[in-house]
Amino acid sequence: MANKREKKKVVLASGVFDLLHLGHVKFLEEAKKAGGKNAELIVIIARDSTVEENKGRKPIMPENQRRALVESLKVVDEAVLGFEKFDLGDVIERVKPDVIALGYDQADMEKGVQEYVDKHKLTVKVVRIGKFEEDELDSSSKIRKKIVEKFSR
Amino acid sequence: MANKREKKKVVLASGVFDLLHLGHVKFLEEAKKAGGKNAELIVIIARDSTVEENKGRKPIMPENQRRALVESLKVVDEAVLGFEKFDLGDVIERVKPDVIALGYDQADMEKGVQEYVDKHKLTVKVVRIGKFEEDELDSSSKIRKKIVEKFSR
Repeated sequence: MANKREKKKVVLASGVFDLLHLGHVKFLEEAKKAGGKNAELIVIIARDSTVEENKGRKPIMPENQRRALVESLKVVDEAVLGFEKFDLGDVIERVKPDVIALGYDQADMEKGVQEYVDKHKLTVKVVRIGKFEEDELDSSSKIRKKIVEKFSR
Repeated sequence: MANKREKKKVVLASGVFDLLHLGHVKFLEEAKKAGGKNAELIVIIARDSTVEENKGRKPIMPENQRRALVESLKVVDEAVLGFEKFDLGDVIERVKPDVIALGYDQADMEKGVQEYVDKHKLTVKVVRIGKFEEDELDSSSKIRKKIVEKFSR
């Protein structure tokens, strides 16, 4: 086992990445680390329509900008827009990840992903990345809140 | 001249980079291009105190986060916080840039930089990068405005 040749692992992460902040970058860095040395990190960016369906409102930044901004990060090898009609099986089929990394706020997704992986007997490791508590402005909703407090009458 | 050996050029850009967006990334990419092939891009991040002095309010994102986020971009080689008491001469002395790139909203600075360069007979090229018009959300103030409109009562 110790001498097993190390193959480059593909790590899949996903999210909305509205109002990009350091918490996003740290999540992506930890996600990539979960794939070991030389891992490749592919990030699926949630479509505007998917976010609207789930949260009842579109993100502040449109999907093309969110995608391009995430792909401009050093840690990211490729950022792609999700399917309009989100389907986990399709995503796994297309990306063929060795590792699927989920954020602290993706608990619901973790259950679904693990069930899918078990059901299809895939050799995909599902990892959960913790939240980074070191700063107050580590979530898009907190940033929005601060802006509204400061600038609205 | 055509056979002159190409030395790696250092490009200096600066800004607040509050609420990071694609306009910032495109500005930095154009700035780096102005240094030719293999240029190194060093970005000075304005201190919270400097922004407060100039604009009458602190940025949304604190300086350490703004710096770390800018440095996490592929295009950026190094991002450093500015001096508490901004001094152009100190910055040029420390970074020793071949090119100083200024954004569309840095007209005031351009005059000061060019005067400094002329006065001290420096071989520093001062370039002005245009604005990218292709999207409505290409400035931090527009992003703030949209958030306030959507989320405040």
